[in-house]
Amino acid sequence: MSQQTDVSIPTLGERTVRSPLPLNTDHDDLIANFVPDAIRVRYNAEINSDAPLPEMLFEKAGPREFIFFEPAKVRAAIITCGGLCPGLNNVIRSAFRQLNNYGVPEVWGIRYGYQGLNPAADAPPVLITSEMVDDIHRDGGSILGSSRGEQPAPVMVDFLQHRGINVLLTIGGDGTQRGAHEIAVEAQRRGYPLAVAGIPKTIDNDIMYTSRTFGFSSAVDMARTVLTCAHNEARAYPNGVALVRLMGRDSGFIAAIATLASQEVNFVLIPEISFQLEGENGFLNVLKRRLKARQHALIAVAEGAGQHLLTDGQREKDASGNVLHKDIGLYLRDRITAFFKEQKIPISMKYIDPSYIIRSMPANSEDCWLCDQYARHAVHAAMAGKTDMLVGKWNGFIHVPLPMATASRKKISPESLLWNSVLSATGQPAQLI
Amino acid sequence: MSQQTDVSIPTLGERTVRSPLPLNTDHDDLIANFVPDAIRVRYNAEINSDAPLPEMLFEKAGPREFIFFEPAKVRAAIITCGGLCPGLNNVIRSAFRQLNNYGVPEVWGIRYGYQGLNPAADAPPVLITSEMVDDIHRDGGSILGSSRGEQPAPVMVDFLQHRGINVLLTIGGDGTQRGAHEIAVEAQRRGYPLAVAGIPKTIDNDIMYTSRTFGFSSAVDMARTVLTCAHNEARAYPNGVALVRLMGRDSGFIAAIATLASQEVNFVLIPEISFQLEGENGFLNVLKRRLKARQHALIAVAEGAGQHLLTDGQREKDASGNVLHKDIGLYLRDRITAFFKEQKIPISMKYIDPSYIIRSMPANSEDCWLCDQYARHAVHAAMAGKTDMLVGKWNGFIHVPLPMATASRKKISPESLLWNSVLSATGQPAQLI
Amino acid sequence: MSQQTDVSIPTLGERTVRSPLPLNTDHDDLIANFVPDAIRVRYNAEINSDAPLPEMLFEKAGPREFIFFEPAKVRAAIITCGGLCPGLNNVIRSAFRQLNNYGVPEVWGIRYGYQGLNPAADAPPVLITSEMVDDIHRDGGSILGSSRGEQPAPVMVDFLQHRGINVLLTIGGDGTQRGAHEIAVEAQRRGYPLAVAGIPKTIDNDIMYTSRTFGFSSAVDMARTVLTCAHNEARAYPNGVALVRLMGRDSGFIAAIATLASQEVNFVLIPEISFQLEGENGFLNVLKRRLKARQHALIAVAEGAGQHLLTDGQREKDASGNVLHKDIGLYLRDRITAFFKEQKIPISMKYIDPSYIIRSMPANSEDCWLCDQYARHAVHAAMAGKTDMLVGKWNGFIHVPLPMATASRKKISPESLLWNSVLSATGQPAQLI
Amino acid sequence: MSQQTDVSIPTLGERTVRSPLPLNTDHDDLIANFVPDAIRVRYNAEINSDAPLPEMLFEKAGPREFIFFEPAKVRAAIITCGGLCPGLNNVIRSAFRQLNNYGVPEVWGIRYGYQGLNPAADAPPVLITSEMVDDIHRDGGSILGSSRGEQPAPVMVDFLQHRGINVLLTIGGDGTQRGAHEIAVEAQRRGYPLAVAGIPKTIDNDIMYTSRTFGFSSAVDMARTVLTCAHNEARAYPNGVALVRLMGRDSGFIAAIATLASQEVNFVLIPEISFQLEGENGFLNVLKRRLKARQHALIAVAEGAGQHLLTDGQREKDASGNVLHKDIGLYLRDRITAFFKEQKIPISMKYIDPSYIIRSMPANSEDCWLCDQYARHAVHAAMAGKTDMLVGKWNGFIHVPLPMATASRKKISPESLLWNSVLSATGQPAQLI
Repeated sequence: MSQQTDVSIPTLGERTVRSPLPLNTDHDDLIANFVPDAIRVRYNAEINSDAPLPEMLFEKAGPREFIFFEPAKVRAAIITCGGLCPGLNNVIRSAFRQLNNYGVPEVWGIRYGYQGLNPAADAPPVLITSEMVDDIHRDGGSILGSSRGEQPAPVMVDFLQHRGINVLLTIGGDGTQRGAHEIAVEAQRRGYPLAVAGIPKTIDNDIMYTSRTFGFSSAVDMARTVLTCAHNEARAYPNGVALVRLMGRDSGFIAAIATLASQEVNFVLIPEISFQLEGENGFLNVLKRRLKARQHALIAVAEGAGQHLLTDGQREKDASGNVLHKDIGLYLRDRITAFFKEQKIPISMKYIDPSYIIRSMPANSEDCWLCDQYARHAVHAAMAGKTDMLVGKWNGFIHVPLPMATASRKKISPESLLWNSVLSATGQPAQLI
Repeated sequence: MSQQTDVSIPTLGERTVRSPLPLNTDHDDLIANFVPDAIRVRYNAEINSDAPLPEMLFEKAGPREFIFFEPAKVRAAIITCGGLCPGLNNVIRSAFRQLNNYGVPEVWGIRYGYQGLNPAADAPPVLITSEMVDDIHRDGGSILGSSRGEQPAPVMVDFLQHRGINVLLTIGGDGTQRGAHEIAVEAQRRGYPLAVAGIPKTIDNDIMYTSRTFGFSSAVDMARTVLTCAHNEARAYPNGVALVRLMGRDSGFIAAIATLASQEVNFVLIPEISFQLEGENGFLNVLKRRLKARQHALIAVAEGAGQHLLTDGQREKDASGNVLHKDIGLYLRDRITAFFKEQKIPISMKYIDPSYIIRSMPANSEDCWLCDQYARHAVHAAMAGKTDMLVGKWNGFIHVPLPMATASRKKISPESLLWNSVLSATGQPAQLI
Repeated sequence: MSQQTDVSIPTLGERTVRSPLPLNTDHDDLIANFVPDAIRVRYNAEINSDAPLPEMLFEKAGPREFIFFEPAKVRAAIITCGGLCPGLNNVIRSAFRQLNNYGVPEVWGIRYGYQGLNPAADAPPVLITSEMVDDIHRDGGSILGSSRGEQPAPVMVDFLQHRGINVLLTIGGDGTQRGAHEIAVEAQRRGYPLAVAGIPKTIDNDIMYTSRTFGFSSAVDMARTVLTCAHNEARAYPNGVALVRLMGRDSGFIAAIATLASQEVNFVLIPEISFQLEGENGFLNVLKRRLKARQHALIAVAEGAGQHLLTDGQREKDASGNVLHKDIGLYLRDRITAFFKEQKIPISMKYIDPSYIIRSMPANSEDCWLCDQYARHAVHAAMAGKTDMLVGKWNGFIHVPLPMATASRKKISPESLLWNSVLSATGQPAQLI
Repeated sequence: MSQQTDVSIPTLGERTVRSPLPLNTDHDDLIANFVPDAIRVRYNAEINSDAPLPEMLFEKAGPREFIFFEPAKVRAAIITCGGLCPGLNNVIRSAFRQLNNYGVPEVWGIRYGYQGLNPAADAPPVLITSEMVDDIHRDGGSILGSSRGEQPAPVMVDFLQHRGINVLLTIGGDGTQRGAHEIAVEAQRRGYPLAVAGIPKTIDNDIMYTSRTFGFSSAVDMARTVLTCAHNEARAYPNGVALVRLMGRDSGFIAAIATLASQEVNFVLIPEISFQLEGENGFLNVLKRRLKARQHALIAVAEGAGQHLLTDGQREKDASGNVLHKDIGLYLRDRITAFFKEQKIPISMKYIDPSYIIRSMPANSEDCWLCDQYARHAVHAAMAGKTDMLVGKWNGFIHVPLPMATASRKKISPESLLWNSVLSATGQPAQLI
């Protein structure tokens, strides 16, 4: 038998308050069951007797029978940070509702991300009401607003402490969750009982221990629509080349999955798979052969792909304020254009960057209900006094310590069946080198 | 340690042919890996040390290094049976493409479901070509057609044998897969080496060992749209009651998940949870109190809910050819209308049955790529000589024996967190009795 | 030269107040122009010298330089009546905003249609605020609610007079506008200066002197989606027959235009064109020949088609409370089913009635901006003291007296090019008799 | 009475062939009527007795009783030119079908626009079949392909003459129609009886005598979606500025109408209305005041707006190969960014250019049926021997001589009610100077 790691989650203290939720611990009485703290979820559901893997066990998420906080004494706050992502409003709404279910009397909405936890920004929080959130789940964006960047943890904890906020739900990606960890650490240092529960928001779907972040499905929906449009553009012109830049800084999930959904893409370039432009089997010559054979090509490139091509040296060449070449999409567009010009092959190039459209759309149905689940689980965790943690989703909803969730990023393995099916769907060579 | 069951899959014989697919078994060479037959996937990823469960292990789906069939000698057939479901064309297309990847020279499309395997129906199969399937993944329906009902297994095997078809991909629900099992058994009885690989198509998402059937996500999308419309209807009229009948013969997944996605529903009635109409806490009086408090109500009912209300006795009362009362939707509509008439409370009742619209829509992005994966895995399994099996999805894609897959149906547990979150989202009482 | 009729519009009195809107009467100064009262719009833009038609001239809609009401003294009310229709919220919002532009201090929303003008209904109006309407244009339904049926004009005028409401915008179809006319007449009888301006809301697009009512375009959008789904159903089954019932009580515009948009329909039945079921060239035998030739058929029927088939005699036959046969959709479904049963031809019948879904969807873009224009023109008219009138759209926006707008209904002429192109698109015979 | 101009259309000769279409000239027999050649449609439906306008009369479009061509001797060709536009495939399909209705035996699809009429391009035409076009009306793009640019008229007429093509349907904007005119003139010069009938395709909706070109409604739909997304982006960040570049080289219809549909835009900049960036009431300072008041702003800019800002002088300043400043969208983005940097006001700028997505989407319902009508009318005109003309839509479908249709462009008048309602919806000042 292989080695087991049981991943433990920090808590604020003993859970002595009977949960007010109408669940119980009896089976077969048709009433939902509280989740015992002892249940564990395996990270690895596979068994390969030839190559046994170390096992990692996570706490199962869900409402606990005994909780840490007296609900009437809770002041909760919700914060959305970083780039927009479909589903932010849905999370806000369901978190508010679930806090209501517990009987929490005050739920504050922090304005403009971590800026709103800094009095210097002069953006005071708003008290969330039922009317305020009633219809927001059908809209994109975030009613609370967002911002990028950090604020000093002591300043933020001052703010929270000053207002008596003891539950903080942080909706954001790994930058946000690193900030959340700092808040949790600072509160703990002060002995201030603050439950910090993270909800993984990254449109790139690259959070560890989280098979699916919210917003991703909606992003793929819109990306597929755009790929179909781009396919129409490519097909309609002699030697039509359509190049779509999709999100994916470190991981190519949107590009890969949208390609599988669209089935029209001929080349997908993602951060996980290195490629060359030059050389007989480099991308440009392979593209040239494709055009010769089929007269059109559709390329999807994740924003983080091919970063090695954008070396400092190269950037210096284009300097004088020209920021184009830091963007792989624009870089590729220019390189492809130049290559075919050099080859004296006229092409019709269409470059599309739908990023801002994709991230500000309303959530699709999948994300709507995923957001609902994430939000409720985060509330359950916080009410139980779990802190410095994030709700993950891996063989079910789980609790993940923030440092563990942000230590690295989930990526597509080039040797996985997923990537292999992308290659099958596109027909592109496994290596563009 | 608890007891383990290793679920074995019938095979046609030894796998002696080297797969022509460009994968290998080396790690870290950036080339995708064949899946060893020995890898197992746990049914149960949870550990509850207080109540250990028996473990069930499934074969992991995926391309095998050695396969049973010489691809050049394969004649494959694809069949779609039962009601329409978003994604049928996507499965057909990806299955055709993956068979192509193996080098299979002939892929036949059986017309109109199992009828097309009976010469009496006079609906000869069509040879599928690349042009034929090129653009079908954006359309609903099935280019092959479908039908309900059974055909005698010997007749169907005669048909297949006569045409030399040795790989049969059966896309359908549990009726279809029971038929597929009979075909597999009959072929085996004859010693005819036929690989029968099923792909679980049930819009209800109720196939065992399959966390997600294709078409379900698209169904939820459209169901949510309809629920939002119905909510608009209910809110706009004094005592507006909107009643939406959704699919779900034995399982309420569409109704429950669409409710979580929509967040507008006030009552969800599903087959798994019994309810009464009459009585102080029966549905009608609870609805009356809701109307008194809020002046409108939105109800979602799965087609299989409340079947006990439609007893023979009751049906006799309404007889004389009146078939209305076999349908819980129409029955509820009439009972609610009659109840409030009796109570002298004027209501505005809107009844909506979107079933045919939901099932004939094109697949959404989630289903598009899920279909692609199911189709490719079914081809991998069949080429490896697996038979009498279905591609399941449970902690990853797995192989499930057909009799096991069709022995019972996946259902929502009334004690699950899923159902509990539905109750939270609707505010309906846990019991309507 | 042919005879001219100049259609005059009742007014409350002289326009002595200078409009506060920032327009003028100078040309070529890049500032928008007030519309002189003297401008007329021809009903008939065609000239047929062989058959000259009498000419009818309407007042052109638009902001007037001098208006009747002192804006600061206006209390306006907005009311939505009858069935839901995409765009109601858009009209409410733009009317509120345009009233704001004039400086009107109070805008009331009447609840639940004409019921809200009857104190007996106990549904007091709400004071509309900017926040209330800010985001409503993206949602279907009506934030004010609606109802069918009439209320006594004296009661309603009492209500309006009591609250000092002197501008009433009535959003509704011809029943609503007949009620609006009665209100205008009653107010005039009392000498109470009330401006009643109607906005034509009929999803059927059947209001006279109005080439396009709002909601119609959205209805066609959704109807087309449903027809495409139904086409998928019909094609997928042997002898598949899909029957879609669409709105259109007196006029078949939705069915006809959605057919042109969809291009998949084989038969359209509308109220304007009589047809027979029986007989060699009756619908049933023509359908039979179609199935023989093509094995599937898609039928769109407007709700008001074939009413002669639903004679009292026939209704008596099916009586005993069975209300089915008052609905042409269900009647046709049953007759087709019975006919093919009799003919011993198995068919697969799918019946779809999407009415409630269609009418409660949000407005599409066309309707969004059409609603905006209607709303603003209605406000301009009312501020100018026009009353007992409706904003029409015929060669531009015009003013139409309410009695004239409700005297008859716009219909499709069987001899028109529009209907002829429907026949071309469906391939159905010009006569089913 | 004012002066009348009767606009005449060139014809190939006498119409001596009885149309095979099943229409007649009798009224009240429920059979559609041929359109007499003598019917005229007024350009101006308004009467302003104070300022009478000269009248212009157009031929009414529609099927004629007597036509020029013997259908069996017609070889027709369809060509799509210029940028993609929603609805191209719909026009192709309906034109093919209507030609079929006349009994035309051969319909050719020219590949890649005018390139396909030049043998040098080596892109031979394809014979269109029913199967080929059956399902294309649901897809964006053009199955025939397109290209920009001209070809010599003699070369193109050689090509047409060589293949015996005597009906040419040209689908394109004013560049395309100018080319069509040259073809018509060259054919006439040779005495080759070629009917050239244009169908106005410009997503900008800027063709004269055409109130609505196809593709425009779909463009507005998608533009509205993007504006709503951009609004979400702007609102979510402190001093969020979203800038959306929309199509509209000479006319701002897409930007203006999408703004009315969206109701979220704060500033619309179109080619017809000049504006300044600098100065107290220039755009930048007005934007600054808006941000101060509301903390966010949404700007829509048509691609042809503010061209005076991109003078050569200015371009020289930024030169050294930097092509950014030829694009008003990118120019504005940079100027706004620089201005607020200078003002030391941090803003969050989001720039979105959805052009390629908008133009390659499938047609919406409005465009679907509009395409159908345009296509059928073009076929009717060509079969009647009308040539060197375009199907316009102005108070109904009309015939417009190509030189007249391409002589100038339809624009938004700054003094129109349309533009005034845009100002009302945005709240922007009438002048940004």
